Amino acid sequence: MARVSGKVDKNGYLVRLGVAIRARRIALALSQEALADYAEVDRSHMGKIERGERNVTFLNIVRIAEAIQCKPSDLFIDADL
Amino acid sequence: MARVSGKVDKNGYLVRLGVAIRARRIALALSQEALADYAEVDRSHMGKIERGERNVTFLNIVRIAEAIQCKPSDLFIDADL
Repeated sequence: MARVSGKVDKNGYLVRLGVAIRARRIALALSQEALADYAEVDRSHMGKIERGERNVTFLNIVRIAEAIQCKPSDLFIDADL
Repeated sequence: MARVSGKVDKNGYLVRLGVAIRARRIALALSQEALADYAEVDRSHMGKIERGERNVTFLNIVRIAEAIQCKPSDLFIDADL
């Protein structure tokens, strides 16, 4: 169970969000590095977000969604959140 | 235009999310303090989230949504995000 920013993600919600991001990125044939650059997120941070290892912020979710051409709500729906 | 955690929220997305949270809280006749306590978010932080003054994290969005009895995706849909 990962402890993220002092809060325990005991239900694996971050992992589910990361899986949703990765699936849409791969559907666009976009590399993780390209997504990080489009979203203006540090490349190593992007990897951790996709693996559910970082408690991503709202504004980064919005930027990532824009970069993978969907709405933030789509990512949450994909992740059943 | 608020600068939040080093990123500019130039489209007012945080304000829209805050408005959505506040509307659902008020619909439940819940005080901001009670919501903060349920969601285990600091009370002053909760006020700043509702005003769009803090770049709220994913896990806090999930906790807030649970506390106001909706899905995180509902908040994003309410905010047209």
